[in-house]
Amino acid sequence: MIENKAWSGRFKEKNDMLFEKMNRSLPFDIRLYKEDIKLNKVYSKELARLGLITENELEAIHDGLNKIELEIKIKGDTLFTNEIEDIHMGIEGLLTHFIGNSAKRIHAGKSRNDQVATDIRLYMLKEIDNIIYLLKDLLISIVEIATDNFDLIMPGFTHLRQAQPILFSHYIMSFFFAFERDIGRLKDLIKRVSIMPLGSGALSGSAYPLNRTALQKGLGFEKISQNSIDGVASRDFIVEFLSDISILSLNLSRLAEDFIIYSSEKFNFFELSDKVSTGSSIMPNKKNPDSLELTRAKTGRIIGSLVSICMVLKGLPTSYNKDLQEDKEPLFDTIDTIKEVIEVTTILLDSIEINGKAMRKAIDSYSFATELADYLTINGMPFREAHHVVGRIVRESLENSVELTTLSESVLCNYNEKFKGIGDDWGTIEKFLEKRDLIGGTGKGSVQTQIEYARKILKDM
Amino acid sequence: MIENKAWSGRFKEKNDMLFEKMNRSLPFDIRLYKEDIKLNKVYSKELARLGLITENELEAIHDGLNKIELEIKIKGDTLFTNEIEDIHMGIEGLLTHFIGNSAKRIHAGKSRNDQVATDIRLYMLKEIDNIIYLLKDLLISIVEIATDNFDLIMPGFTHLRQAQPILFSHYIMSFFFAFERDIGRLKDLIKRVSIMPLGSGALSGSAYPLNRTALQKGLGFEKISQNSIDGVASRDFIVEFLSDISILSLNLSRLAEDFIIYSSEKFNFFELSDKVSTGSSIMPNKKNPDSLELTRAKTGRIIGSLVSICMVLKGLPTSYNKDLQEDKEPLFDTIDTIKEVIEVTTILLDSIEINGKAMRKAIDSYSFATELADYLTINGMPFREAHHVVGRIVRESLENSVELTTLSESVLCNYNEKFKGIGDDWGTIEKFLEKRDLIGGTGKGSVQTQIEYARKILKDM
Amino acid sequence: MIENKAWSGRFKEKNDMLFEKMNRSLPFDIRLYKEDIKLNKVYSKELARLGLITENELEAIHDGLNKIELEIKIKGDTLFTNEIEDIHMGIEGLLTHFIGNSAKRIHAGKSRNDQVATDIRLYMLKEIDNIIYLLKDLLISIVEIATDNFDLIMPGFTHLRQAQPILFSHYIMSFFFAFERDIGRLKDLIKRVSIMPLGSGALSGSAYPLNRTALQKGLGFEKISQNSIDGVASRDFIVEFLSDISILSLNLSRLAEDFIIYSSEKFNFFELSDKVSTGSSIMPNKKNPDSLELTRAKTGRIIGSLVSICMVLKGLPTSYNKDLQEDKEPLFDTIDTIKEVIEVTTILLDSIEINGKAMRKAIDSYSFATELADYLTINGMPFREAHHVVGRIVRESLENSVELTTLSESVLCNYNEKFKGIGDDWGTIEKFLEKRDLIGGTGKGSVQTQIEYARKILKDM
Amino acid sequence: MIENKAWSGRFKEKNDMLFEKMNRSLPFDIRLYKEDIKLNKVYSKELARLGLITENELEAIHDGLNKIELEIKIKGDTLFTNEIEDIHMGIEGLLTHFIGNSAKRIHAGKSRNDQVATDIRLYMLKEIDNIIYLLKDLLISIVEIATDNFDLIMPGFTHLRQAQPILFSHYIMSFFFAFERDIGRLKDLIKRVSIMPLGSGALSGSAYPLNRTALQKGLGFEKISQNSIDGVASRDFIVEFLSDISILSLNLSRLAEDFIIYSSEKFNFFELSDKVSTGSSIMPNKKNPDSLELTRAKTGRIIGSLVSICMVLKGLPTSYNKDLQEDKEPLFDTIDTIKEVIEVTTILLDSIEINGKAMRKAIDSYSFATELADYLTINGMPFREAHHVVGRIVRESLENSVELTTLSESVLCNYNEKFKGIGDDWGTIEKFLEKRDLIGGTGKGSVQTQIEYARKILKDM
Repeated sequence: MIENKAWSGRFKEKNDMLFEKMNRSLPFDIRLYKEDIKLNKVYSKELARLGLITENELEAIHDGLNKIELEIKIKGDTLFTNEIEDIHMGIEGLLTHFIGNSAKRIHAGKSRNDQVATDIRLYMLKEIDNIIYLLKDLLISIVEIATDNFDLIMPGFTHLRQAQPILFSHYIMSFFFAFERDIGRLKDLIKRVSIMPLGSGALSGSAYPLNRTALQKGLGFEKISQNSIDGVASRDFIVEFLSDISILSLNLSRLAEDFIIYSSEKFNFFELSDKVSTGSSIMPNKKNPDSLELTRAKTGRIIGSLVSICMVLKGLPTSYNKDLQEDKEPLFDTIDTIKEVIEVTTILLDSIEINGKAMRKAIDSYSFATELADYLTINGMPFREAHHVVGRIVRESLENSVELTTLSESVLCNYNEKFKGIGDDWGTIEKFLEKRDLIGGTGKGSVQTQIEYARKILKDM
Repeated sequence: MIENKAWSGRFKEKNDMLFEKMNRSLPFDIRLYKEDIKLNKVYSKELARLGLITENELEAIHDGLNKIELEIKIKGDTLFTNEIEDIHMGIEGLLTHFIGNSAKRIHAGKSRNDQVATDIRLYMLKEIDNIIYLLKDLLISIVEIATDNFDLIMPGFTHLRQAQPILFSHYIMSFFFAFERDIGRLKDLIKRVSIMPLGSGALSGSAYPLNRTALQKGLGFEKISQNSIDGVASRDFIVEFLSDISILSLNLSRLAEDFIIYSSEKFNFFELSDKVSTGSSIMPNKKNPDSLELTRAKTGRIIGSLVSICMVLKGLPTSYNKDLQEDKEPLFDTIDTIKEVIEVTTILLDSIEINGKAMRKAIDSYSFATELADYLTINGMPFREAHHVVGRIVRESLENSVELTTLSESVLCNYNEKFKGIGDDWGTIEKFLEKRDLIGGTGKGSVQTQIEYARKILKDM
Repeated sequence: MIENKAWSGRFKEKNDMLFEKMNRSLPFDIRLYKEDIKLNKVYSKELARLGLITENELEAIHDGLNKIELEIKIKGDTLFTNEIEDIHMGIEGLLTHFIGNSAKRIHAGKSRNDQVATDIRLYMLKEIDNIIYLLKDLLISIVEIATDNFDLIMPGFTHLRQAQPILFSHYIMSFFFAFERDIGRLKDLIKRVSIMPLGSGALSGSAYPLNRTALQKGLGFEKISQNSIDGVASRDFIVEFLSDISILSLNLSRLAEDFIIYSSEKFNFFELSDKVSTGSSIMPNKKNPDSLELTRAKTGRIIGSLVSICMVLKGLPTSYNKDLQEDKEPLFDTIDTIKEVIEVTTILLDSIEINGKAMRKAIDSYSFATELADYLTINGMPFREAHHVVGRIVRESLENSVELTTLSESVLCNYNEKFKGIGDDWGTIEKFLEKRDLIGGTGKGSVQTQIEYARKILKDM
Repeated sequence: MIENKAWSGRFKEKNDMLFEKMNRSLPFDIRLYKEDIKLNKVYSKELARLGLITENELEAIHDGLNKIELEIKIKGDTLFTNEIEDIHMGIEGLLTHFIGNSAKRIHAGKSRNDQVATDIRLYMLKEIDNIIYLLKDLLISIVEIATDNFDLIMPGFTHLRQAQPILFSHYIMSFFFAFERDIGRLKDLIKRVSIMPLGSGALSGSAYPLNRTALQKGLGFEKISQNSIDGVASRDFIVEFLSDISILSLNLSRLAEDFIIYSSEKFNFFELSDKVSTGSSIMPNKKNPDSLELTRAKTGRIIGSLVSICMVLKGLPTSYNKDLQEDKEPLFDTIDTIKEVIEVTTILLDSIEINGKAMRKAIDSYSFATELADYLTINGMPFREAHHVVGRIVRESLENSVELTTLSESVLCNYNEKFKGIGDDWGTIEKFLEKRDLIGGTGKGSVQTQIEYARKILKDM
């Protein structure tokens, strides 16, 4: 009989060292030690209630677990030999070391299958909160930037071509609403994470009459899993989390792309702080937007993790399979990555210089062309015709290198008499904005409303 | 000037034919015709309110749109020449054909950017409902199968190795809870789809004082987008939908994998109906579980689509870019695929034969080993020690080819005297189940509760 | 007994209609009809040699197959009822219709498992050739553009920040080498596609003494599969193809991104032809680079297909499983997509206007900073110190808004006396290029060599 | 001026700590230290040739680099403070520490852009060799198992349903050919990895007249990159590597799936060694195939990494962008993972017990049905008819619970007179195998040929 593993009773031969290394999750699941200790504390109370351990033993177990928490905090995985497979066995082993035989009682009625599912849910609940907290910080920065630069005008782009002028504050607020939905998704997710599998045993339910409601309350879950097979088998909540973070990361990558382009020499709308830029080892002139580039690139890492866990789950037989051990590293890496990216993006926004002059100067007179079409339309010309009339004006003005907004009413009337009354000042920013004060538009009133709405949301969060 | 496109006013040269084909979305976005027509109806009312079209024109437009809906339903894309880029231009073109110049007024104050975003959201709201409906059917089938086969016993597996006996009804109910969460995710998604972008214009908001609240009510959206750039740029709701369907598909793939294995000759737990099986073109003996295999494989297709749209969005500058046109085909294909898969799975379950005898016979006596360990534990032995004791019993019994449950109390006591009182009938299914009647366990009471809970959920849905 | 399927002998019940639809591959595998007909021609000769069909029957079969090829070419899938599962059964069915009972002999000794694997390999061999052909066209265009615009100077970017000046011809040739490797990968792949599985039967090998070498020669394969299970089970060549095309597509997406940015108003290095641009339905001023944006986006589609087939294959039991039917649509879609993208990119390059003046004017004087550091280094200062010295010059010049290249020798010597002898003209393009004539550098001699090398490669291809 | 970075000359403000952490690659690129040291040795010789360092300095540099190699080997990343960005700066810093100012000369004429691309290619060349080596070991094990168990018969499956009997040796050899192609892909890849970018500088080529051919020879590359932009920008070779490993991993996952099923209690074809199995913490009876499950699951990890790097590269502007830093972790993780998986699979195969009796006993008499159809075909009945005749025999025999192979000639003749002469022993394994001795078939001669062919390939490798 091999003595080194919890399960070695029926085995004759030791594990091959290479397999042992492959099989071992302790190097990464040690991250769950606080949750595992919490679980063991709550669970041992229930064992005491069932009379499977005495009150004295319970006290010893709790003292031991407290000591272990401190030890792991300080010494990390150096506490464990290579034969310790995972954090559950690690903690049970340390507890046995500290308090002796009573420790061997704590695994009664549970399995690592329900234990790890419970630990990981507890861990995620904590980290989802952390991510939401950081996202709120980012939202606050966005609102402040919008407020501080409320009046600045910039070219609005579609297809990376100048489309129409917009308020910079309108532009930056567009991210507010995207990230707010990201928070919404995470909040919706919580109810599917906050389900306690503990008590599911290996797959058929614990053989002990556990009061699962007491366990749930002790651990702080919203709900109890209603089917033990589902309890140990399901990782949908991890896929959902990775999906939510992938979407968030895609949103961040779009902000990053914009900011890389807008802070390039040719655009010069923004100047990144030295705090989040780097230079070149060879070219003394360079100032590179590494923080933004890494933010953009990390999307690949996160979505790679999403694909990874999907691939693991695809076609897996139900209940627990060892494949599920591969859920942790992509999850943990994604949590670390997204927290870093959100924080660095917030620092970047907080320290950015916005070059209002360059943005205003960049506005192309041709981005007012729609105003001409709209004038004709209001004066009764079908829009589709108006579009063609203005298309011709645009084409000819480009050929003659004339700035569109310099065309006077009389010149326009030569093209079409319905331009009568448009005035020579038809192509000003002020007029442009005034006309776009409907809900969601780039008019000042609308953007003001957006900001107020945003402040309210932040307050209520 | 090129006349064939809505936007050709400023262009001198025609599109290359190959590019025109690449650029053309009509072959797939024709699927949005009902939504686009609905939008144009509601939108034209608003134009009438603003005085941009007369009441007569409005009536003509609505009549024309009704006619177009019928035409497209019957004739499909044969209505449109290769020069028609998309369904929006297609409908506007047909309308012009039917009612003349008034049709050219309907694009005033909107852009294809906000129009397509609105259409696609309307379409998804409809299809999400359809998918939830089909999922409910699947849930009903599961509950019925669980009810009809309540008492059947089967081996429960972990790692595809016999672990412990379970009720078949417990097994099949485990899928109920997974699919129920899938519905929950789709329901949560609705609030992020049901946001109306119409009125966002190209990116800066419409230049006309549209009453967006009226539009919202007319179209049946829950909310109005608060920022026009976000309105035309965001596709997060599509990624979220594809994520939700990916998770659902992963759950279905696991059911499929189980059923492929359980219906194989060696297991023989289930017999698939001829309705969902096929044969071999060469081997007259074969009956193949193609429906299950395709269900398993379609997961790849769906997650491929998820990756596709993520890849498209990554690093895209904000607001509208033509890249976003690539959002539709993966979305549409996923909708078709998942509906097919859910329906076929339901048919498969409804027509399956469950071989209770084979399942019962398959139960390995060794899957009762935990019962021995638990007995020792209750009699005061630490569980970890009990596990080792029983491990040894297992190993020696295997070596002697003895069925574990045939070990009598006296034989067991030879191993350890704490087995005293266990009785010779310690290893019966009845005893096993009785001990697992806690919430979520495989005990009969627990499974009965699950079924009642499920019926209630279905009723309240 | 159900009569409608090739395999229905042992079945009692008809397939459910929904399942039949799911199961049916004819709508997409009809694309393999030419290959399937070719296979049946070659295979029937072998059956004739074995005496399983007569010479007369053979002739009738070949005549019938010729007729079928024409029919399918003209009428497509309208030839087949919904009960026809796939192109193999479709062709056998038509043949029976045309020539009667002899047609029922052609399936002897083969299975759809080896037949479809053979068809798809034949099809891919043809399409790989087509793709390589199109890539060569693209390479020719690149070399011509490089030649025609050999002397143009442009800013070279790293991190989308100006780094150092480069020859435009050097820039564009960088894509030559990337796409050349893409061709290399496809050529390497051919040897793994050109392996004939025919004769593998369902999985165990044909039961007839087929001369597989004769089949191989008749079908034009390089090699014969050496193991029948591997022959029907493997799809590695499809994954490899999708990987190769994914890499090619990533290369194209980087070209597209560059060209979108470089043709934006602010950069204005390139002007896209109207042939590959579109306008806006609302903004008459817009000219959008849709061809480039779609090229960029199609990467998502292609890599989605790669993920899809990987997901399908993961964890699949060996030999044939119906899951493998899901290999075709991603493959076919990828072939269509990449051919379209390559062709449109070639048209775009052939019709682009390169604005040499704007490129030259855009060069930032600070992108010559490395020249200063190098001068100090050659004069004996360690490079790392030189980098710091020049870093300071850069910083102070920026603060004083001085163009770096206007700094005279004497001003530079004030910073460090090792600048002595550098001359006032240290910061000219000519000097910059001269120094970079090593292999692969942006010097004119180097780029000339690249072009010559490229011409030679194209000739030898 | 900030002094702590190589590039800090033009910067006024220090990096934010969080950004510094995000930006820092040393924790993972330290893995490249040997390659970076090798590069610096070869490169400094070239600097000496150019007179930029003296012979004495060269000697000091080489001595210093040797010392650093040893130091890093022993002390790892504890040598470096958080301000050291990457291994290049780390080594340059240590060298300065050890030998003083001369160390600051080694970066002349190179950039981290070409340096890291060179390092990573060197590293990959080494690791590709290692992987091929391990794969050869796996191939050898397969051939040995096939040889040692040459005569064993097992059921062959398609759709996880019994299809036809096969030789176990034929079955296991099917993996040989798959893995052999995996080696072929890696070998093809080498020529695209073995291209030296060194001398490309930041993007425009080194400003020093480096003899790149000398560098190439010193570093052992097959070729020199012909374009400096391509040299620093391309990561296609990493994507190709990850694709190749993904395919290999998919092949391994299929082997794993088979072995999990075949070693399950119900099949019992194989018994896994205790060396690569684990038990359960709760169920003393369990012996779980964790090594196979992890092998199956690692596919997700590897393909996740492939997606990750694809996502990073998509739409990236040409030449170097910081995003490329995200190429390393997925690459390194994949190398570690695949080596582990190959080795554990080899150990598993080497230690597996094959249960010939169980395999033979498992063969279903119905898997001989094709033999009947073939007999009819050879006697002149069209195969498609024969298939139907036998289909009926199968169906009726199943209904009467008759083993198919027990049907005598006379019984068969009752179904159809063309069975005359088939003999009562038509359904024996021996006859079955004899008929399948064509190339690639499961006949003994064919499998013997496969094994000989395999031995020859292994010898020539």
